[in-house]
Amino acid sequence: MDKDFLLYSDAAKHLYHNHAAALPIIDYHCHLSPQAIAENNPFSSITELWLGGDHYKWRAMRAAGVDEKFITGNASDEEKFIKWAETVPLLFRNPLYHWTHLELKTAFGIEKILNGETWQEIYNECNRRLKDADMTPQGLMKKYNVEVVCTTDDPVDSLEYHRQIADSGFEVKVLPTWRPDKALAFENPDIYKNYIGRLSEVSGVKIEGIGSLFAALKNRHDLFHKNGCRLADHGLGDVPYEECGDGEGDHLFRKILKGDALDVKESEGLKTLLLRYLMKLNAEKGWAQQIHFGPLRNVNSRMFEKLGPDTGFDTIGEAGGTVKMARLLDSLDKEGKLAKTILYNLNPSDNMWVASMIGNFQDGSCPCKLQMGSAWWFNDHIGGMEAQMDAFSSQGLLSLFVGMLTDSRSFLSYPRHDYFRRIMCNLIGNDIDNGKLPVSELKRLEKMVEDISYYNAKRYFNF
Amino acid sequence: MDKDFLLYSDAAKHLYHNHAAALPIIDYHCHLSPQAIAENNPFSSITELWLGGDHYKWRAMRAAGVDEKFITGNASDEEKFIKWAETVPLLFRNPLYHWTHLELKTAFGIEKILNGETWQEIYNECNRRLKDADMTPQGLMKKYNVEVVCTTDDPVDSLEYHRQIADSGFEVKVLPTWRPDKALAFENPDIYKNYIGRLSEVSGVKIEGIGSLFAALKNRHDLFHKNGCRLADHGLGDVPYEECGDGEGDHLFRKILKGDALDVKESEGLKTLLLRYLMKLNAEKGWAQQIHFGPLRNVNSRMFEKLGPDTGFDTIGEAGGTVKMARLLDSLDKEGKLAKTILYNLNPSDNMWVASMIGNFQDGSCPCKLQMGSAWWFNDHIGGMEAQMDAFSSQGLLSLFVGMLTDSRSFLSYPRHDYFRRIMCNLIGNDIDNGKLPVSELKRLEKMVEDISYYNAKRYFNF
Amino acid sequence: MDKDFLLYSDAAKHLYHNHAAALPIIDYHCHLSPQAIAENNPFSSITELWLGGDHYKWRAMRAAGVDEKFITGNASDEEKFIKWAETVPLLFRNPLYHWTHLELKTAFGIEKILNGETWQEIYNECNRRLKDADMTPQGLMKKYNVEVVCTTDDPVDSLEYHRQIADSGFEVKVLPTWRPDKALAFENPDIYKNYIGRLSEVSGVKIEGIGSLFAALKNRHDLFHKNGCRLADHGLGDVPYEECGDGEGDHLFRKILKGDALDVKESEGLKTLLLRYLMKLNAEKGWAQQIHFGPLRNVNSRMFEKLGPDTGFDTIGEAGGTVKMARLLDSLDKEGKLAKTILYNLNPSDNMWVASMIGNFQDGSCPCKLQMGSAWWFNDHIGGMEAQMDAFSSQGLLSLFVGMLTDSRSFLSYPRHDYFRRIMCNLIGNDIDNGKLPVSELKRLEKMVEDISYYNAKRYFNF
Repeated sequence: MDKDFLLYSDAAKHLYHNHAAALPIIDYHCHLSPQAIAENNPFSSITELWLGGDHYKWRAMRAAGVDEKFITGNASDEEKFIKWAETVPLLFRNPLYHWTHLELKTAFGIEKILNGETWQEIYNECNRRLKDADMTPQGLMKKYNVEVVCTTDDPVDSLEYHRQIADSGFEVKVLPTWRPDKALAFENPDIYKNYIGRLSEVSGVKIEGIGSLFAALKNRHDLFHKNGCRLADHGLGDVPYEECGDGEGDHLFRKILKGDALDVKESEGLKTLLLRYLMKLNAEKGWAQQIHFGPLRNVNSRMFEKLGPDTGFDTIGEAGGTVKMARLLDSLDKEGKLAKTILYNLNPSDNMWVASMIGNFQDGSCPCKLQMGSAWWFNDHIGGMEAQMDAFSSQGLLSLFVGMLTDSRSFLSYPRHDYFRRIMCNLIGNDIDNGKLPVSELKRLEKMVEDISYYNAKRYFNF
Repeated sequence: MDKDFLLYSDAAKHLYHNHAAALPIIDYHCHLSPQAIAENNPFSSITELWLGGDHYKWRAMRAAGVDEKFITGNASDEEKFIKWAETVPLLFRNPLYHWTHLELKTAFGIEKILNGETWQEIYNECNRRLKDADMTPQGLMKKYNVEVVCTTDDPVDSLEYHRQIADSGFEVKVLPTWRPDKALAFENPDIYKNYIGRLSEVSGVKIEGIGSLFAALKNRHDLFHKNGCRLADHGLGDVPYEECGDGEGDHLFRKILKGDALDVKESEGLKTLLLRYLMKLNAEKGWAQQIHFGPLRNVNSRMFEKLGPDTGFDTIGEAGGTVKMARLLDSLDKEGKLAKTILYNLNPSDNMWVASMIGNFQDGSCPCKLQMGSAWWFNDHIGGMEAQMDAFSSQGLLSLFVGMLTDSRSFLSYPRHDYFRRIMCNLIGNDIDNGKLPVSELKRLEKMVEDISYYNAKRYFNF
Repeated sequence: MDKDFLLYSDAAKHLYHNHAAALPIIDYHCHLSPQAIAENNPFSSITELWLGGDHYKWRAMRAAGVDEKFITGNASDEEKFIKWAETVPLLFRNPLYHWTHLELKTAFGIEKILNGETWQEIYNECNRRLKDADMTPQGLMKKYNVEVVCTTDDPVDSLEYHRQIADSGFEVKVLPTWRPDKALAFENPDIYKNYIGRLSEVSGVKIEGIGSLFAALKNRHDLFHKNGCRLADHGLGDVPYEECGDGEGDHLFRKILKGDALDVKESEGLKTLLLRYLMKLNAEKGWAQQIHFGPLRNVNSRMFEKLGPDTGFDTIGEAGGTVKMARLLDSLDKEGKLAKTILYNLNPSDNMWVASMIGNFQDGSCPCKLQMGSAWWFNDHIGGMEAQMDAFSSQGLLSLFVGMLTDSRSFLSYPRHDYFRRIMCNLIGNDIDNGKLPVSELKRLEKMVEDISYYNAKRYFNF
């Protein structure tokens, strides 16, 4: 992992070193805690920072045969770190192997390889360094040259920490993202009604039917906008599309409030109605909206009972959804209410249709108004990123791609932007080297690299 | 894009230059206008020729943020050309980038790169050249060494232009292809009934039930055969298969004629019945039949209202269809009525099952009686062609592949045959270079390249 | 195909030659006949050995246009061999081309290329050599350094040949594998009832309802265990999952015994019940279970009538099945009854979700308790194996992969282990060469190669 890591041609090296490496980071989608940024407390240990909530690492440890005690259980920080260190040498060819060592190198200056022999030295050194000022949440963001960060927030969130950060004069923009998934999660009526109660409370709107639900959501949407929010994010399993009018929606919503369950068709209808309402709000505000679709969540019910969601038991769901995705986007476009939209598919078998789908709703109002999102989650590795960029290239205009994001819960994930830039420069550089792209157009290709690394996102999101 | 463009080994260069480059073109599937060939008028401008009906370019311009006025609107030829020229530098890694410059080079002798600075010079030069005799429809076909062209024609077409071309002594064979999709398109009963009326008229058969519909279609099928037609083409969305007898079909067809709509199952049944009838005709005549399946059409209803079909709002549909495809082919094979068949899938996730599906119905009657079609539409790029050939190779006998076609509406698309041949020679050449194919078998490998470039198609279609 | 065949870097050559080539073969899944091993008779001819039951070759010959007479018909051995020899040169880029010549080279010492000119010489030489002692079933297994072979056996099999082999002192372990597919195949009630009769007979359990069916199966499962069986294998089309209790199952099973057909939902319910019962037995015995899913079988009904199953008319089925696979595994995990499990998908579009699915049920009880199976059947070629390993790598721990198997009916297929090892060493070696894997970790990478080649399987299956 020297300076030319992942760069296999002179053109790739040139593009990366002279046109990508130094640009600031716009991390327009992540799951960082705004509270942690605002409070800016040092991390207690490398175990907390690395293993406290990272379900990628948890899955790897489970696959390595590590007992749950050392993963999410009550083992000590040191014991957990040892088990992780012993897992690392089993991770050859898994992206975690690169991520781990990139983080050690760029954040801690450690070039040693982590394993069962080196763990002690690395553990001590990391924990020592974590006391330094450049290793707090804000310290790390500055160290990695981050310019904008968009967190992921629920409509009922107060956004107090976002305001606190903005008021503090912290030089990195930390903006909220509107993620209203819980307002559509009526599978469990009790949890849902409780959520609606909180939404009612924070919005000051008494929610009794679909009209007041809309009003409450709009109230919060406005608040998010006032607090700098410019992106929405919609997490879906399968893409829903079932026609449902306001009247029918009102009836269904009241049914849930009464504690009655919806059947499959009703549920999809109400979900479609709400989603379309929310997406129209996004368009009206000029936001960009993200659609993350395709996971199958919490498939291990034993572990879900024990640990709850987001603990490493989500998986790649069924490929497909072309017809419903087309109808959803069309229904909004038809009303002139299709916001800038980024589609992220989890099943890579969907890459090509997604890359082709965005082409149907480009309307000339903005360069690449619809985007194919960066390789997401289970696709976030070299092959996955290359496949996403190849799909985007073959069906559309990669030069207008808004590029990478971390999608991470960790303050140590910024090297993934660097990782992406190397992979992207290498793709383009190799095409120059093998004559697929004309070296006579080098100036434009340099600009393309700069745009994908930084400028496209800045322009697209109006940051 | 020098002479060794896309050729990365000595073996690839040898195969291409000495065994592929000079062979004539058999373009066995395209959408050229027989009238335009027959009349052979010069093109009015490069804008007409390039941007008059090319929805690939339209999609690219829309994605670039160009206003529809400059795409399909009332802007001037020059304005439209400028917008296109400005879009080109955004197309790095998209196949249009290569196609555009290959066409400029091979048709017009222009080696400059098209962009916002060079447009004027290129525009003028192209328009000047278009007045030359070698730049008419027939001129271009001769320039590109075309031997056979198969257009795509509706059963109600008179084929008068095909006869006119044949009578004119034009040295390129221009044959019709039977594409009876409209005879199966009863989703809109009014349009359908109107179509049935025209079919009745041109065939002289009064169409009142399924029997007379069959008779009318057979009448036209015979006429097509007399006019040199040797290929059929069936464009499907999802592959239909629902058992339906003649009696039931008659009932359903009469229902439509009365203006009543069919439900989903009825519609699929009638479609299957008609498709199977038509495919049996193909077998009886010894034709080859093509099945293009998998698109989702006209997904943008706002633009469909405005521009109609084939304007850049079709997209890759759902992967799948294995069971119905198997049943359709089996139902014909069982009756001894399965024609030579070429399957083209639009969703590349289907590549492998299609490559494996054809293997189930090879019956020894003809080398590679069933074929996996050349990478189609959204797959028509380097990666898509390589994936199609890799799938074909791994499941079957690539050496018997009938090779490339343009599928194009443009007389400038012939360089895509050259593009394909380079990619194919490169695949095979690299395998020789890296020892996957034995250099001691070079003679046979040279023959394989010649066969895929030209001879397989000539033999398979009996041209 | 020299000693460095498929090895494209120094690191790859080092890994293969010094850490993979010499290791014994554990062929933990194949379809060899235990009777043939026990009897150890010489093969009558190369035609019998190569073309007697190999539907890969039959498909290739059919695609080449060879008449069925020369494939499964009554042509002479020599005639059939000639037709095969003439087909071989058409197989460039198909895995059969490599397999054929690897078998000629490693078994017969023939380095000539097979074709229409060389057939006579090769035919004679092969038939001459087949009389030698090292060319019997047992001779070939020793020649190829095979340590363990797991055949595929039905619950009603007596396992007499396995016992006979064990008693004979033959140094290769030949173990049975429990494959109870027929106990779930009630689509044809007559065949099924006949099968249940045989099961009743061999188990000594009178089967009248679901309880006695369970008892009979458990009886045979115990017998298999006593005879050294440590693996089960479940061949499925689509993955079934439909909740069904014992009472309902009993009712459905009795319905079949009475000769009544089940509807789709009932059939899936009973199948799920039986499958779950069998899988719990696997867990209780500490076996590893294999799930092969995704084929569409016997799609050519004309040929099925003529030749029966397993004659080259199976094909890649629909991609998908994520939800049902998740539920099936979850339902077992929840009861603490999920055995070590290996998932083999036939449609390569499923690679990524399968690689991700196994991660949801790794429970720390064993390194990589769930595995993604080696590239299966239509995926058993260079690209397919690379794709499988890339998927495994990106989602899990390739270093714990149990590696290759032949899945073959032929005693000549062992070179495919060598083929796989070369491809695997090449993947890893190239990653070292291009800096994706650290050369400083060479010792661990060497171990990884040895583990995947041999030791992981030995440990995982407790051989």
